[in-house]
Amino acid sequence: MKQITSAQNPFIKQLVQLQEKAKARKQSGTFLIEGKREIELAVKGGYEIETVLYLAETDFDFRIFRFSDFQKIEISKEVYQKLAYRDTTEGVIAVAKSKSLSLSDLELSENPLVLVAEAPEKPGNIGAMLRTADAANLDAVIIANPKSDMYNPNIVRSSVGCLFTNQIATGTTEEVIAFLKARNIAIYGATLQDSIAYHEQDFTSATALVVGTEATGLTQDWRNAAKQNIMIPMQGEIDSMNVSVAAAILIFEAKRQRGF
Amino acid sequence: MKQITSAQNPFIKQLVQLQEKAKARKQSGTFLIEGKREIELAVKGGYEIETVLYLAETDFDFRIFRFSDFQKIEISKEVYQKLAYRDTTEGVIAVAKSKSLSLSDLELSENPLVLVAEAPEKPGNIGAMLRTADAANLDAVIIANPKSDMYNPNIVRSSVGCLFTNQIATGTTEEVIAFLKARNIAIYGATLQDSIAYHEQDFTSATALVVGTEATGLTQDWRNAAKQNIMIPMQGEIDSMNVSVAAAILIFEAKRQRGF
Repeated sequence: MKQITSAQNPFIKQLVQLQEKAKARKQSGTFLIEGKREIELAVKGGYEIETVLYLAETDFDFRIFRFSDFQKIEISKEVYQKLAYRDTTEGVIAVAKSKSLSLSDLELSENPLVLVAEAPEKPGNIGAMLRTADAANLDAVIIANPKSDMYNPNIVRSSVGCLFTNQIATGTTEEVIAFLKARNIAIYGATLQDSIAYHEQDFTSATALVVGTEATGLTQDWRNAAKQNIMIPMQGEIDSMNVSVAAAILIFEAKRQRGF
Repeated sequence: MKQITSAQNPFIKQLVQLQEKAKARKQSGTFLIEGKREIELAVKGGYEIETVLYLAETDFDFRIFRFSDFQKIEISKEVYQKLAYRDTTEGVIAVAKSKSLSLSDLELSENPLVLVAEAPEKPGNIGAMLRTADAANLDAVIIANPKSDMYNPNIVRSSVGCLFTNQIATGTTEEVIAFLKARNIAIYGATLQDSIAYHEQDFTSATALVVGTEATGLTQDWRNAAKQNIMIPMQGEIDSMNVSVAAAILIFEAKRQRGF
């Protein structure tokens, strides 16, 4: 049985780089997943696990890996604390292989409902949108012009495992628009200009709901590509909504119209 | 003109206590507000400002205080950094008087739509709900069995000023239920037990939407008091939703039914 007890161990130092640097994740094609449930959801979502690092006292059930080949390393508390971000210690961290997240890999239903977020800035908002997308069982979540890689630890963390339960793709705005148009998926851009109230739009056909950044909204490309721009009526003092909250309101209106 | 240049100044030390300790806020009946827009919204919302601390270079418009009496103190960068939490420096912080937030002070419309959150744990979720409540122009947001005071700096911050634009009250669950019943406001508790899908419920009459904590949901008291329990259909791998997202979905379904 392999053991690592020093946080100075070169392999552990490499893993710290995976937490801290997008470049390290890109070069190695791997990232870290912390937590029992998150690792289980990643396995269920078809992610390949290379290594599992665990504390002796963890109650993690290694049998979820029945048919796969992976390295098992017992680590000391010192090493665990170096790698983990959580207070609540579940004592298990996995090194997983990234997926390509290509648009061409998405498998959509006949009447898809898709969320597109353009250049979202806060990892926490991406995590929240993935969580809502999971609840709504969306066909896919597409990030256009991403500002960070999807395996950023803050996204992994805030998605509470929903990074692994959703079909996800990334691409440039141009690529995503071409993808949606080629599949006859109507684009509804959330923006004030030339828009109608979201609940007056029919989302029962193939639909992509597109949200922009909080700071600058959607780019002109999306506004041009939209079948219809939509907005959520705002009746308060503040004129902007958290992007993940806005996405949830749009998604669940579409779900309601579709009878869940 | 009064100036404070040392972070060791006793008054500044008192203000740091306001940021850090609920007890200090309670004893003094004051709290801190940072940011131009936030202070403007607080003034607009009827909050009394006792003191404004500012950097010489701020472009804050003091004319918003035209009819009120307050102390103006120029502070050094050192003092500002001691008090401020933001990176983006607007150079102005106010000391404001807390409100009582009594249920009896709420002024409701004839056909009110109210959000009740029971014992929400994360200040960020309270802030997010206040932001949604502002957008929906709810009659009031009521926090039942609050776990922290509403002037907690993390709530002030995450509400982006919506702490001041909403009517807010706190009380025990028992008090809030009694308040709603006395006013014939129907209670709809978001909980799985004995519930119907939220979009099948009519919210066009006087309505209180009640959400519980993420960890344990609503207490039995609310389930007993509810006219109807409601739930958001969950079709993914994960069985819980962020409470502020769930609240937004319920609020905007009620708004939709009411024709905004």
